[in-house]
Amino acid sequence: MKNLLSMEYLTNDEIMSIIERAREFEQGAEPKLDRSHYVANLFFEPSTRTKTSFEMAERKIGCTVIPFEAGFSSMLKGETLYDTVKTLEMIGLDAVVIRAKEDEYYRELLEGINVSVINAGDGTGQHPSQSLLDLYTIYKEFERFDGLTVTIVGDIAHSRVAKSDAIALRRLGVNVNFLCPPEWAGNFEAQYSWDGILEESDVIMLLRIQHERHDVPFSKELYHQQYGLTVEREKQMKEHAIIMHPAPVNRDVEIASELVECKRSRIFHQIHNGVFVRMAILETILKER
Amino acid sequence: MKNLLSMEYLTNDEIMSIIERAREFEQGAEPKLDRSHYVANLFFEPSTRTKTSFEMAERKIGCTVIPFEAGFSSMLKGETLYDTVKTLEMIGLDAVVIRAKEDEYYRELLEGINVSVINAGDGTGQHPSQSLLDLYTIYKEFERFDGLTVTIVGDIAHSRVAKSDAIALRRLGVNVNFLCPPEWAGNFEAQYSWDGILEESDVIMLLRIQHERHDVPFSKELYHQQYGLTVEREKQMKEHAIIMHPAPVNRDVEIASELVECKRSRIFHQIHNGVFVRMAILETILKER
Amino acid sequence: MKNLLSMEYLTNDEIMSIIERAREFEQGAEPKLDRSHYVANLFFEPSTRTKTSFEMAERKIGCTVIPFEAGFSSMLKGETLYDTVKTLEMIGLDAVVIRAKEDEYYRELLEGINVSVINAGDGTGQHPSQSLLDLYTIYKEFERFDGLTVTIVGDIAHSRVAKSDAIALRRLGVNVNFLCPPEWAGNFEAQYSWDGILEESDVIMLLRIQHERHDVPFSKELYHQQYGLTVEREKQMKEHAIIMHPAPVNRDVEIASELVECKRSRIFHQIHNGVFVRMAILETILKER
Repeated sequence: MKNLLSMEYLTNDEIMSIIERAREFEQGAEPKLDRSHYVANLFFEPSTRTKTSFEMAERKIGCTVIPFEAGFSSMLKGETLYDTVKTLEMIGLDAVVIRAKEDEYYRELLEGINVSVINAGDGTGQHPSQSLLDLYTIYKEFERFDGLTVTIVGDIAHSRVAKSDAIALRRLGVNVNFLCPPEWAGNFEAQYSWDGILEESDVIMLLRIQHERHDVPFSKELYHQQYGLTVEREKQMKEHAIIMHPAPVNRDVEIASELVECKRSRIFHQIHNGVFVRMAILETILKER
Repeated sequence: MKNLLSMEYLTNDEIMSIIERAREFEQGAEPKLDRSHYVANLFFEPSTRTKTSFEMAERKIGCTVIPFEAGFSSMLKGETLYDTVKTLEMIGLDAVVIRAKEDEYYRELLEGINVSVINAGDGTGQHPSQSLLDLYTIYKEFERFDGLTVTIVGDIAHSRVAKSDAIALRRLGVNVNFLCPPEWAGNFEAQYSWDGILEESDVIMLLRIQHERHDVPFSKELYHQQYGLTVEREKQMKEHAIIMHPAPVNRDVEIASELVECKRSRIFHQIHNGVFVRMAILETILKER
Repeated sequence: MKNLLSMEYLTNDEIMSIIERAREFEQGAEPKLDRSHYVANLFFEPSTRTKTSFEMAERKIGCTVIPFEAGFSSMLKGETLYDTVKTLEMIGLDAVVIRAKEDEYYRELLEGINVSVINAGDGTGQHPSQSLLDLYTIYKEFERFDGLTVTIVGDIAHSRVAKSDAIALRRLGVNVNFLCPPEWAGNFEAQYSWDGILEESDVIMLLRIQHERHDVPFSKELYHQQYGLTVEREKQMKEHAIIMHPAPVNRDVEIASELVECKRSRIFHQIHNGVFVRMAILETILKER
């Protein structure tokens, strides 16, 4: 695997292989790389989780990380992303992790670039490392995908997590439902009410309301009441069902604040799992270099 | 010691133990930690000294530092400090060093957070690592606290250094005076003129005028004349008395520019001492994890 | 060598010694330093290439890099550059790499500062590490300087690269020409048309149009047609002549986009060479400490 760009390009075997390797890392396995690699993290959008998770994973598999301040680079002087990445390649980097505002920003990097590219989120496109950690979290819980029911709730049209997860989960045999306000469904076929959802879902996957991508004023209370996971709704979930959220969480909007760390919640576990998944992604890519 | 939040929570014994360990580090002692720890520095206010000093101390005791860009984190998307720190904990950090604008920002981190928190300055509250390096600087100079006289001069109401130092110094037997314009005394009992101060002070501790926290226009010349350490005033200091300032210095305001590196000045020594004090703080906290 | 501030202060012997050491590093030589050094990179202007190149070179010769966020330092509170650099010295740094907006910002660091200063660009002044990598690139290509003809094209008045390179190249026996619009010649004697230039130049060195330093609106098409390296002009270059550009490139302004990676172009090679040159600079300076 040279790059990780979109869940669409990963086979089920590749997905399972990353999940299994992540589990080995979580159980203490040592990375299988014969040298230290140089990587940089190019984040053109704010991030806490994904960026620090990659920074941690990179150090844990023995990479040397070259700092790159996206808000203070020569792209301010009009340099293209291609020229920026090519520059990093010539400086000696093995891989770059990129988050950018533009959907499929990586298209311009497919030719002429030898450094490996790991997509850490492209606009409203894909977020494959998040998707892989979601899959790992589900697999750790149920030890299978086939026959599970996952309901993705919220700002689906803007969510790269929804897209990435839906593609992969369906391919792995999961029954995926969507629940959201009618205006947020985008191209997805969604339900507009909770009717029947809590009774049949093994996973309730909440999405962050991306206030920064919406113009229209919005009532947090109303959203919480209609589409949020309230304390009452949590009680109606199936016995072994779990709650997921890619975070950051808008407390008392997508989910009642007191549920964020409840027994069913895997929200902080997802973050913990993410480090091992990213170690697996990096090792898979770097060991072929 | 799990956290370092405020000088109020440290006993005299804990203070002396950090001072003694700092001296050992200055004399070349090796850190006593049985593994490498992961730390991050979350600075939500500008800083040169405190931040780079912690970055240096962390590396000198063998930590791996995970970069965190406060101005480009998910707190921009409304994530709480609790959720940010919990995220870093789940990613695998052992300790976070935090500077934030809010007084006692750490209150929301006291429950549910396992990662150690080191306060690098909270609003107009406390700045315990600065205070400990001030104490170390005074102790190195006089080899005692009891019976010394320290006068703290300047913007006392806004100063976390003044508060942190006064609490600890008084508890250690130091006679602490304050000198400032009447409107800057806050809750402290202060003198408004230099009468008698130079003759009796072993330490003149100047504070930075925090222009960024004042609205009223302000005459630098007038302040220097009335409250600054001028060349003339320095000549009236006691023979072995020293000058301190947490820096950054407003030259020719709090202190005449030519005195910044004069024989009595410990301003740059304080910075040098700070690295060893922070090594001691980090080791004390991390060795219990 | 304590500092690297300007090409004016380097002898030809010092230049050749850095070039030769860079070549050894490119061929796999190990750094000759008996301990790890602490360095910081203070970039007060945006940079991709120079900053990441120094970051890479520092790690490759075994330095520990202390992060410094220029846009979030105490200089925002009015601290002088002198006090900032002195602070870093007291914290234990061996060298600082600085890029700043002011011409000869380093003047205030010449007295009282013991940490080594490496100039990574001062306003419209000098850019010695870029100049040395340009020289290395030319030397690798022709194995000599004497008798070569180099034409520097573009925004000469604003270019620290033009100044740094012209000084050094002429001293090394190179015939240096300038080509630019009349209003951009500054103090240099320049040609205003391509007449005769392509036939005699061994190196065409293009400079970036520094849009951020110009007020007057400017036609990219017109510039390209009159002063750019077009596809047609490239065909008239001498057989072994090469194209250089310090980058970032304004594609289709200074140079036709399709020539950026053409056979004669050394634009990305320059970036690659820069890492070895900066390793040589750092080693030269640090081994004397």
